[in-house]
Amino acid sequence: MIKISLITIGDEILLGKTVNTNLSFIGQELTKIGLSLSQSVTIKDESNIIIKTLNDIWRKSDTVITTGGLGPTNDDMTKKSIAEFFNKEFEFREKIWTDIKNLYKSKNMKIPSIVRTQAEVPKGFKTIENKFGTAPGLHFQDNNKNFFAFPGVPSEMKEMVKDYLIPFLKENYQTKSFYLKTIKTIGILEAEISERVKDIKETKNVHLAYLPQPGMVSIRVSGKNIEEFNTIIDRIEKKISEFIYGYNEDNIIELCHKELINQKKTLSVAESCTGGLIQNLFTNYSGSSQYFLGGVVSYSNEAKMQLLNVKEKTLKRYGAVSEQTVEEMLRGIREKFQSDYSIAVSGIAGPTGGTLEKPVGLVFIGVNMEGKIIVKRFNFSGTRIQIKEKSAINGIYLLLKNIKM
Amino acid sequence: MIKISLITIGDEILLGKTVNTNLSFIGQELTKIGLSLSQSVTIKDESNIIIKTLNDIWRKSDTVITTGGLGPTNDDMTKKSIAEFFNKEFEFREKIWTDIKNLYKSKNMKIPSIVRTQAEVPKGFKTIENKFGTAPGLHFQDNNKNFFAFPGVPSEMKEMVKDYLIPFLKENYQTKSFYLKTIKTIGILEAEISERVKDIKETKNVHLAYLPQPGMVSIRVSGKNIEEFNTIIDRIEKKISEFIYGYNEDNIIELCHKELINQKKTLSVAESCTGGLIQNLFTNYSGSSQYFLGGVVSYSNEAKMQLLNVKEKTLKRYGAVSEQTVEEMLRGIREKFQSDYSIAVSGIAGPTGGTLEKPVGLVFIGVNMEGKIIVKRFNFSGTRIQIKEKSAINGIYLLLKNIKM
Repeated sequence: MIKISLITIGDEILLGKTVNTNLSFIGQELTKIGLSLSQSVTIKDESNIIIKTLNDIWRKSDTVITTGGLGPTNDDMTKKSIAEFFNKEFEFREKIWTDIKNLYKSKNMKIPSIVRTQAEVPKGFKTIENKFGTAPGLHFQDNNKNFFAFPGVPSEMKEMVKDYLIPFLKENYQTKSFYLKTIKTIGILEAEISERVKDIKETKNVHLAYLPQPGMVSIRVSGKNIEEFNTIIDRIEKKISEFIYGYNEDNIIELCHKELINQKKTLSVAESCTGGLIQNLFTNYSGSSQYFLGGVVSYSNEAKMQLLNVKEKTLKRYGAVSEQTVEEMLRGIREKFQSDYSIAVSGIAGPTGGTLEKPVGLVFIGVNMEGKIIVKRFNFSGTRIQIKEKSAINGIYLLLKNIKM
Repeated sequence: MIKISLITIGDEILLGKTVNTNLSFIGQELTKIGLSLSQSVTIKDESNIIIKTLNDIWRKSDTVITTGGLGPTNDDMTKKSIAEFFNKEFEFREKIWTDIKNLYKSKNMKIPSIVRTQAEVPKGFKTIENKFGTAPGLHFQDNNKNFFAFPGVPSEMKEMVKDYLIPFLKENYQTKSFYLKTIKTIGILEAEISERVKDIKETKNVHLAYLPQPGMVSIRVSGKNIEEFNTIIDRIEKKISEFIYGYNEDNIIELCHKELINQKKTLSVAESCTGGLIQNLFTNYSGSSQYFLGGVVSYSNEAKMQLLNVKEKTLKRYGAVSEQTVEEMLRGIREKFQSDYSIAVSGIAGPTGGTLEKPVGLVFIGVNMEGKIIVKRFNFSGTRIQIKEKSAINGIYLLLKNIKM
């Protein structure tokens, strides 16, 4: 396997002002084609440090990638340092200069004179088109080794990595056959998956990785041999089929959002412990107004009675966190909004408010589908915010599972 | 200034499964005491790689910090590698073992036998208490140099860094006098702040840094000379006083949360384009049920009329995104919930739905304080989610500003 090293250049990362998402993005993209980073170094944008680091890393790697420091201002030291390290002079490239001028023209902006230096490129280097900024990427081939430099702005870097770096590495280094599938589950803990699939062993050709998120676990299967790869996926699916909600980029909220649009049905939501999170998650998607009519956050008992017609008797006898209350919330909210579907949640997010009988993490989640009501009881663990997140995602999933056609 | 290097150990960071927030956290904590990281390296958890990297970095640094790989399982290689690098044997520490047994006992869990290795420590190393896990941190002093190892789990590492590493470095390395203050603003762009304070120059002893967040900008002033430091802060405050909402760790949502608890007043919220986000932000705080009665997300016009008594005439004449509609939402929501205060928001979060007259980013935000109504018009830029965030935070701030005593 080739050795790929990443150097991220920028004081702001070392000072903790910026999280190094460039590292995680490039790491993920390489994984998708069966490659991976050997190491990653973050350094200050000072010329002597960049050159020293290049000196050290270039020797040890087959491919070196840098991000950051390609801008036109005085504190952008990367391009100068690269030219010095590879002992190349700069040459002015008309084509790049024209591209930059067009970019400014399209935005109706005047070009600052300093930007002209962006068209200066070390001799022998290819440039990589930057659709969203003025700094082109750089690519240099030296015998069997490859050097790439990208800007540090994530939106610019990401496009260039996807359009240029990944296809290049795929073409030149990817194992002839590489297969990747992520199985996405909800409602089962990582430890329980491990237990269920414990007799399914990784092989030399097929690897497994678990990626947990609040309430969900993804299982990434990657392999070089298609038969072994398919066999292992089949076997895993059989062991945990009831917990699988999708594959690869699938996302429960987006799946539900699309399903509601496709079905041309409307939705309303009644939230207690999730405090508006479910509605917030739907409305993050453009187009949610096609189905989402609105909802109520009934934090107090009065609100549950006033706005959702929950009976005082029910609250007194069973409490606000109970199957009975959620059932009445589901009837009340659907009637209020005249929606086809409704979701309702009531629980104890903590850290206070729990009792022996009703501990922190106890949550009742229900759906009302044109009058048909289902309510489920959950016991979640975690912080207040994690319990809110798990409740919200399970509420959305309960609807999706029951309406999916 | 001392040279501090960080080594984060873990395949999951290089594979992009985890974002390296340990780097940004440690970077920030060091900055607060006037120190900073010289470099950060991320490597795989393989023994030969850890030892090679230590060899290289220890030589070049005054202080080396590692995170990750301190767990008890086979793929946790850090402790063994450290012992090998510093050429120390392991010794069993009874005290640590007792602590671990107590931790398991308090959780009512059985100790897996493998955990016993956590009490083995390289000779001559101090241990650092881990309140939230079984792996103690490690500290080794060698002449004037210091080596620290922390677990990779952020919640465990953070406490240990705050309780042990930072006080130690402060005591031993902090410049005699170091001053830090963060001025927090809302409602003014970074470029506009720069313009207003452009004649306030950084000096050799006092530095300025801008940290933008959606809708807010923090200005961090750090300095070694108290007179210059105070003068610069005074001058900045004079130029932008109307936009300052707080200092250092102040957070608008938390300030408003505390103010409402102190005033013993109640709150209800009516949201349209923010889709539940404002209510979600309040309910992330434990204790919000003391003041937050609930609210309505009125995404459709019908919901605005049905639940908030917005008049059809008003919606027809002025539209859902208008000062008049928000005024009626404010009256309706306060009446419905019988709350002391209310917040209401209506706007166009985009990316679609804008018109020439009412473009994406146009948002009306209002508050009702015991009958006194204020509505303000905003034009936000950004993505759908950024516009939601800016609207929510400005809604909460509009209330805070007007009720603060």
